[in-house]
Amino acid sequence: MELGNQIFQLQYAMDTFYFLVCGALVMWMAAGFSMLEAGLVRAKNTTEILTKNVMLFAIACTSYLVVGYDIMYGGGLFLAGIDGGETLVADALASSAEEGFEGDSVYSAASDFFFQVVFVATAMSIVSGAVAERMKLWAFAAFAVVMTAFIYPLEGSWTWGEQPVFGLYQLTGDEGLGFLDFAGSGIVHMAGAAAALAGVILLGARKGKYGSNGEVRPIPGANLPLATLGTFILWMGWFGFNGGSVLKLGDMASANTVAMVFLNTNAAAAGGVIAALVVAKLLFGKADLTMILNGALAGLVAITAGPDTPSPLMATIIGAVGGAIVVFSIVFMDKVKIDDPVGAISVHGVVGLWGLLAVPITNPDASFLAQIIGAATIFVWVFVASFIVWVVLKTIMGLRVTEEEEYEGVDLVECGMEAYPEFTNSN
Amino acid sequence: MELGNQIFQLQYAMDTFYFLVCGALVMWMAAGFSMLEAGLVRAKNTTEILTKNVMLFAIACTSYLVVGYDIMYGGGLFLAGIDGGETLVADALASSAEEGFEGDSVYSAASDFFFQVVFVATAMSIVSGAVAERMKLWAFAAFAVVMTAFIYPLEGSWTWGEQPVFGLYQLTGDEGLGFLDFAGSGIVHMAGAAAALAGVILLGARKGKYGSNGEVRPIPGANLPLATLGTFILWMGWFGFNGGSVLKLGDMASANTVAMVFLNTNAAAAGGVIAALVVAKLLFGKADLTMILNGALAGLVAITAGPDTPSPLMATIIGAVGGAIVVFSIVFMDKVKIDDPVGAISVHGVVGLWGLLAVPITNPDASFLAQIIGAATIFVWVFVASFIVWVVLKTIMGLRVTEEEEYEGVDLVECGMEAYPEFTNSN
Amino acid sequence: MELGNQIFQLQYAMDTFYFLVCGALVMWMAAGFSMLEAGLVRAKNTTEILTKNVMLFAIACTSYLVVGYDIMYGGGLFLAGIDGGETLVADALASSAEEGFEGDSVYSAASDFFFQVVFVATAMSIVSGAVAERMKLWAFAAFAVVMTAFIYPLEGSWTWGEQPVFGLYQLTGDEGLGFLDFAGSGIVHMAGAAAALAGVILLGARKGKYGSNGEVRPIPGANLPLATLGTFILWMGWFGFNGGSVLKLGDMASANTVAMVFLNTNAAAAGGVIAALVVAKLLFGKADLTMILNGALAGLVAITAGPDTPSPLMATIIGAVGGAIVVFSIVFMDKVKIDDPVGAISVHGVVGLWGLLAVPITNPDASFLAQIIGAATIFVWVFVASFIVWVVLKTIMGLRVTEEEEYEGVDLVECGMEAYPEFTNSN
Repeated sequence: MELGNQIFQLQYAMDTFYFLVCGALVMWMAAGFSMLEAGLVRAKNTTEILTKNVMLFAIACTSYLVVGYDIMYGGGLFLAGIDGGETLVADALASSAEEGFEGDSVYSAASDFFFQVVFVATAMSIVSGAVAERMKLWAFAAFAVVMTAFIYPLEGSWTWGEQPVFGLYQLTGDEGLGFLDFAGSGIVHMAGAAAALAGVILLGARKGKYGSNGEVRPIPGANLPLATLGTFILWMGWFGFNGGSVLKLGDMASANTVAMVFLNTNAAAAGGVIAALVVAKLLFGKADLTMILNGALAGLVAITAGPDTPSPLMATIIGAVGGAIVVFSIVFMDKVKIDDPVGAISVHGVVGLWGLLAVPITNPDASFLAQIIGAATIFVWVFVASFIVWVVLKTIMGLRVTEEEEYEGVDLVECGMEAYPEFTNSN
Repeated sequence: MELGNQIFQLQYAMDTFYFLVCGALVMWMAAGFSMLEAGLVRAKNTTEILTKNVMLFAIACTSYLVVGYDIMYGGGLFLAGIDGGETLVADALASSAEEGFEGDSVYSAASDFFFQVVFVATAMSIVSGAVAERMKLWAFAAFAVVMTAFIYPLEGSWTWGEQPVFGLYQLTGDEGLGFLDFAGSGIVHMAGAAAALAGVILLGARKGKYGSNGEVRPIPGANLPLATLGTFILWMGWFGFNGGSVLKLGDMASANTVAMVFLNTNAAAAGGVIAALVVAKLLFGKADLTMILNGALAGLVAITAGPDTPSPLMATIIGAVGGAIVVFSIVFMDKVKIDDPVGAISVHGVVGLWGLLAVPITNPDASFLAQIIGAATIFVWVFVASFIVWVVLKTIMGLRVTEEEEYEGVDLVECGMEAYPEFTNSN
Repeated sequence: MELGNQIFQLQYAMDTFYFLVCGALVMWMAAGFSMLEAGLVRAKNTTEILTKNVMLFAIACTSYLVVGYDIMYGGGLFLAGIDGGETLVADALASSAEEGFEGDSVYSAASDFFFQVVFVATAMSIVSGAVAERMKLWAFAAFAVVMTAFIYPLEGSWTWGEQPVFGLYQLTGDEGLGFLDFAGSGIVHMAGAAAALAGVILLGARKGKYGSNGEVRPIPGANLPLATLGTFILWMGWFGFNGGSVLKLGDMASANTVAMVFLNTNAAAAGGVIAALVVAKLLFGKADLTMILNGALAGLVAITAGPDTPSPLMATIIGAVGGAIVVFSIVFMDKVKIDDPVGAISVHGVVGLWGLLAVPITNPDASFLAQIIGAATIFVWVFVASFIVWVVLKTIMGLRVTEEEEYEGVDLVECGMEAYPEFTNSN
């Protein structure tokens, strides 16, 4: 075999492996969301939230395989794109013969699917936390199917999919005003939060969360080590989430970008922790662990829209702003009685918006106007579509467990088993 | 240095790194088994099952290093193969000078050992769950030595080791009828389950599990978030388990296969979850989390024998069949009073067999006959050899703790400490 | 593009990715320390130790970014080294044009920073465990800033940084007597333990740990599955810690070394487990899980100074000696009333020293004299500098919570929330 071809194959293998490693890290985020949410709900609702998290990941993988990927990236017929990359590779080989291999992002189509599919699950994981402790399991499952097969893939098709299905994004795409969302502060995280917000509004708050005279009653999570573990898992998985979104590793410029993305992702999370720690101390007088964990996640969400252009110090600051915002946002949500047991709407939605708006600060290719139009489009589409689906599900099967079931805990009614049968003293 | 040699070295480094990353993921499965098993036993037996899991991993690594690897792959004398790969590389360089590098799977021998050694631990981890809550710790340790030094390596030598030690596998190997077990549904998982079954039969059921009038009493696990975490860890680790079993990354065809294996492994797990969820709902009326977790693992075991040839949709179906089988199998095992606290024999044994039988559906190189002969050979060898070892251990030191110790919990008698000293209300 | 340049870029990308993957694994060790420490303290002090662990990681990343990296590696001005590696690459390209690429360790400077920054956090994580259950949160935070911005980077600058700031290490460096510490048994682990020891001496033991008539009262950890999980996480992360310290992957010799390092790291951990299991059984009559976990970590610390030169069997023995030492050391520390709730000073300090002394056994480039001088220099510098900082903090803000707060648990006073509000029966 000639040397040029050998080099091409090596680069192809390297870029494929890079995708697979990053995808495995994103899959690992599913464990992170599970542990975070299981740690932040009460013991009596823990089995159910675990069940929802495992279930939604499986549903997301299957729906996206059967329907969603084709909607989003339009590879032609059902599953046709997933042939091990033969078509893609044949095209690439032909073109590389002419122009050299270095300009092409070429890797196994299967690795691309693997990386994309775990993103869908991330978007859906955001929903489960916000509706925890009161939503019916099977209504949630039905929503998961629609969200991962249609709502998210359609939204993704206008941006990353570069498919002018509804034409909305041509305004903001590469040819338009310059909407940039590197790894999905808006496309993934704010989208998940928008779907969650629609559900929470229809679902209402947990019993006893808001008193009749306006006071907010804290409902502490049952297992903070679990919540902390979940946060660390998400932090680690985010290296794959953002790092893999460079989409290419195998040349010097790409490798430098991947490295900067890893570094900035870490820096932003650190900034988020420190800001949330300080702001919570000032507001509440304590080192509030749940706020600190949300600060870490806020830092990660904030940098996700543009981890490639800031300096590490700027990334720290972008993350820190996210970490500060999330504390105020969580307080605000309780003021307006949006009951989100894990703070997912604040972390992924409010800070997701901040992430989009922060891109033009360091990246001249993005504009504030395009970011705002893009954010509004994503939010309106996902919120409205989700709201309609939630309404339909509410009509058909109901969204909320009965008051008695909520008091007893959803674990027994939905799953028939307690998460900690030997530990809990009371409900 | 000339360019061809540089390219060879790059591929060598890439293939080595791929092995090491996959091996680290498989090592991580040890944590998965530990958490799964710790979550599914009662609080009073948790420290002991954790101890067994850490211990067996250490024993497996050391036994395989000192004896097992040489039995299985016959590199010559004790440890001689692990010289950093110098011999292997010298041979490869010589041949690559003649024929080009692309045909050779060449990588550091140390990376090969690292990848193989964590497989041994996996096989042994399967045993610990099935014998949980009543087996003596030191009897288990002694069995672990024999299993990882001799029983598994001998079995592996006939298949992956391509060594006609007893000649049994020549019937089924490449030259024979076409026995194919890509990453070890049979060679690793069913083998572990066969050893476990032999132990469980000799050991008997936990006190109180089966009533005198035939009823089966559920013994709920103490910590379901831990069991869920364990399942996610195993799911993630399985990308290394199956993905690394391609044994080569660094050319286009290999990279495509690795990517398909990652994708199909994930798809099968998702299929297993959905099937177990639905079957358990139909049978028991609930979304049974422990069945769903076993469904995920069953999907993974099912695809392990042949993750390279199915389409992703077919992989989902193979996994789903595994997920359905596992629910019925767990119910059946209780019918025949085989008490397996974590369902390991069903997940790894029964579904491991299904995995072997599913290979010929998509892979024309495999035949049902060869798969059946291969499965029978593995099962008979591991079951009989294990049975003998268990009998010997029973005679010498006894397998089971006393009735009083079992009632008190094995944690105090074996390890001298409780897993959750501040939490539990009762035994 | 010419082929030689393409090959150079591929190697550059591969080495960068290898650094990033290893760095992500080391970051993951932060989760390991958190879970280990959270599992080994009492329930009433769990939220606080989790908070400290998340906080210290964020502080370490930010301090090292702003100050520490420049002190340690002196890349010039504040943050100047972190430009995505452009300068480094330009130099390398120039030299590779002349002499071929194979001799240069060239990779993205950002990936180097990412790898180094997570090491700083590791050193600091060691401290949090030793001072657990009684130190004020904000005093700890202040110490973390000084440790990660100055004390560790200065120490690192004399060794890995090759900067003769104080000139002490010229005696022991490459040009000197031959001090070798591959991945930091001394530079990272013993350094962390020295800082911890200074804090523990000033802080004193937990109330009730040592009786007036000399007896040692065990204070059991609240959650052993968590401690076991933490140990497995650290075990996995250590592959990145040691494996990444080869600093280069992309040629045959480097790849062989990386593979041997992975293999030996695993073998040493296994040896540590077995030795601690046996020694604890002989001493205490039980399979003591906390000793076994410390044995695994001791094995890992022991091999860290020289994982590249021993045979795997020798690595097992080096780890086993570490695992034996740690049991005796933990017993000894209690004899002299150094109260270290998680055994960090024994695991990282005493065994860190053993790791340094073990290097010359298999590596002729190291000498015992240089190892002893190096160890003494590191210990004296970190211990004295830390002691001064702790004294200053004690004077300004106090190090220890009040007796009443200690009795109630530091969770409520420092963080305002319990880790397990529904589980615990008592304090």
